[in-house]
Amino acid sequence: PETKLPGVGTTIFAQMSALAQAHQAINLSQGFPDFDGPEALLARVDHHIRAGANQYAPMNGVPALTAAIAAKVQRCYGRQVDAASEVTVTSGATEALFAAIAAVVRPGDEVIVFDPAYDSYDPAVRLNGGKAVHLQLQPPAFGIDWDEVARAINPSTRMIILNTPHNPIGQVLSEADMQALSRLVEGTDILLLADEVYEHIVFDGAAHQSMNRYPDLAKRSFVVSSFGKTYHTTGWKVGYCVAPAPLSAELRKVHQYLTFSTSTPFQLALADYLNADSSHDQALPAFYQAKRDHFNALMADSRFRFTPAGGTYFQVMDYSAISDLPDTEFVLCLVEQAGVVAIPLSVFCQQPPEMKLVRFCFAKNESTLEQAAERLCTI
Amino acid sequence: PETKLPGVGTTIFAQMSALAQAHQAINLSQGFPDFDGPEALLARVDHHIRAGANQYAPMNGVPALTAAIAAKVQRCYGRQVDAASEVTVTSGATEALFAAIAAVVRPGDEVIVFDPAYDSYDPAVRLNGGKAVHLQLQPPAFGIDWDEVARAINPSTRMIILNTPHNPIGQVLSEADMQALSRLVEGTDILLLADEVYEHIVFDGAAHQSMNRYPDLAKRSFVVSSFGKTYHTTGWKVGYCVAPAPLSAELRKVHQYLTFSTSTPFQLALADYLNADSSHDQALPAFYQAKRDHFNALMADSRFRFTPAGGTYFQVMDYSAISDLPDTEFVLCLVEQAGVVAIPLSVFCQQPPEMKLVRFCFAKNESTLEQAAERLCTI
Ligand SMILES: CSCCC(=O)C(=O)O
Ligand SMILES: CSCCC(=O)C(=O)O
Repeated sequence: PETKLPGVGTTIFAQMSALAQAHQAINLSQGFPDFDGPEALLARVDHHIRAGANQYAPMNGVPALTAAIAAKVQRCYGRQVDAASEVTVTSGATEALFAAIAAVVRPGDEVIVFDPAYDSYDPAVRLNGGKAVHLQLQPPAFGIDWDEVARAINPSTRMIILNTPHNPIGQVLSEADMQALSRLVEGTDILLLADEVYEHIVFDGAAHQSMNRYPDLAKRSFVVSSFGKTYHTTGWKVGYCVAPAPLSAELRKVHQYLTFSTSTPFQLALADYLNADSSHDQALPAFYQAKRDHFNALMADSRFRFTPAGGTYFQVMDYSAISDLPDTEFVLCLVEQAGVVAIPLSVFCQQPPEMKLVRFCFAKNESTLEQAAERLCTI
Repeated sequence: PETKLPGVGTTIFAQMSALAQAHQAINLSQGFPDFDGPEALLARVDHHIRAGANQYAPMNGVPALTAAIAAKVQRCYGRQVDAASEVTVTSGATEALFAAIAAVVRPGDEVIVFDPAYDSYDPAVRLNGGKAVHLQLQPPAFGIDWDEVARAINPSTRMIILNTPHNPIGQVLSEADMQALSRLVEGTDILLLADEVYEHIVFDGAAHQSMNRYPDLAKRSFVVSSFGKTYHTTGWKVGYCVAPAPLSAELRKVHQYLTFSTSTPFQLALADYLNADSSHDQALPAFYQAKRDHFNALMADSRFRFTPAGGTYFQVMDYSAISDLPDTEFVLCLVEQAGVVAIPLSVFCQQPPEMKLVRFCFAKNESTLEQAAERLCTI
């Protein structure tokens, strides 16, 4: 049969994790920790399975979890949201992103994304008949050029996708960015999709600039986050979206036919854990900053060059002192010669970037980071 | 903001389960058991969680589970499929249905569905720019009129969605149906989407007519099934799609951006259980037939009229001897007057059906069925 999606390949994360497995290499590509979440969280899953909580969760999420999410949004960002009508639990943040796009992007609509951009945004927009307008984050700091955004906005602009802390770059938006965004969208119908899955992984004392902090932005935003990143359980696939009731209603129209609902035992376990303890989230910046610093200190002896990430559990590095190869070829060399797998940055860009950059995931045990850095220092 | 999906309401299953909860009524609406899956299956989840299997599964499924699915398709239907390229694990059958539709239905394409039709088919087709062409199953037996299908086929026909055993009706397709389908699609590019989530719940000695039994149909089919229905774990949200490699490749292009992957601990637990024991599937027809017969015997004393379901865990009943109300109003009366929640059949039909029908789920413990029947016999 003819192909509806000729331009779509296999996501880089599936490709690179398969490559790591095939080479028995150290996998610093796809973003997931090689350690487990809190024992008290893990134990609750079996509790709920044994208590018989094995049937469909409510479509929008189990009430205990949506309430815990609402409480957390209030505690962290001072925004009051209604758990029943404004919080939707999804099968990972990926589903929330897709559902938000499918719910509002109509054929012909434009959606502004910033390159390098997470690889699901563009195909999700296209699959729904929209057009992704790719603007470039500007090296070296990879900030948003708000004047360029202003020029890109036109009557077809339906949505802007923001991502802070930013994957793959690791930079975070500032209060000034949020103010610039506010000025730009004021008086328009433009919707915002905020990918904030690394909300609790912000370094050097900075505060995460959640849309939830800004009422004038929040009222037009789908704010997406993930329990996988925060609780070291990426394989449980529990994410969520916070949005004003009318936007949540649209999102749910799609969510109900995408997956209907999300694993009941995981939702209940997460609800118990969130209600019992918020110290995990609070300890996360220091926890990951120590890993960043440890990895970067070891990598100071390598020929890679880098500016420390401001957030996320990714560190981008420039390999131009090592090789002239395009990044997609360089990562293949890295596997062969160093036994370490990284993500090439060009896959996140519509136009190949001038800089030679790869992304390493440092959500790993010290021994993994040490072994990887040792190998990376040899090339 | 304007609404992209003005015609889409909340899925009937969310509505009715919420109604049941609000009234503390017996919930025979949404299809899920009120008993648990096998102990040996439940126990494996904690095992894998404690073994550290809490990070992303491979995008297409954990190899142990895709291999177990391939072995099962071979054992049950005599079809050899390649686990790596032809089996994809999804977040419930719902995701598989949506992904298959999104992967191949282009703007302007027509998709034939048979009413009453499961409520996700039509919105999924429309969301992807296609048009669902609704044909009616003909009472009293609710068979497919293949001449009508032949007349409905035209150059825009991209896909036909089949569902056997059929939800909500409970009828099963016959070998003659499959032959008629084969003749119709031979020499065309028409794709098939087979919703076979009740594949192991077929009664009275009939054999499930899986697309997987028919090579000429299987080669153009997405065959979707679910572990939730078979293992009494609807809340785990693990389903799958079997399709030839080129179709699976298209499906995965969408799946990777819908949910990326499905819960690792549940996938591993299911793989262990499938590999250890196939007796559960084999015992399922008798298990559910006994429930059907028990419920129906009790309901013989009621004013509902019915023909026993041939498959699924649903029994459709005619209430015309009780009330003249439209079915959506009758189910509200049923809650008020009998404290039992059912699904009205008109929600599955583009044109309101002439018959007055509601659907009861009999995947319940004997005591639940007895209590429900006692109440239903009073009205
Ligand atoms: C859904 S797999 C990708 C995980 C991730 O967010 C990343 O590696 O960037
Ligand atoms: C996904 S909720 C609906 C469950 C079901 O298949 C039904 O009740 O028909």
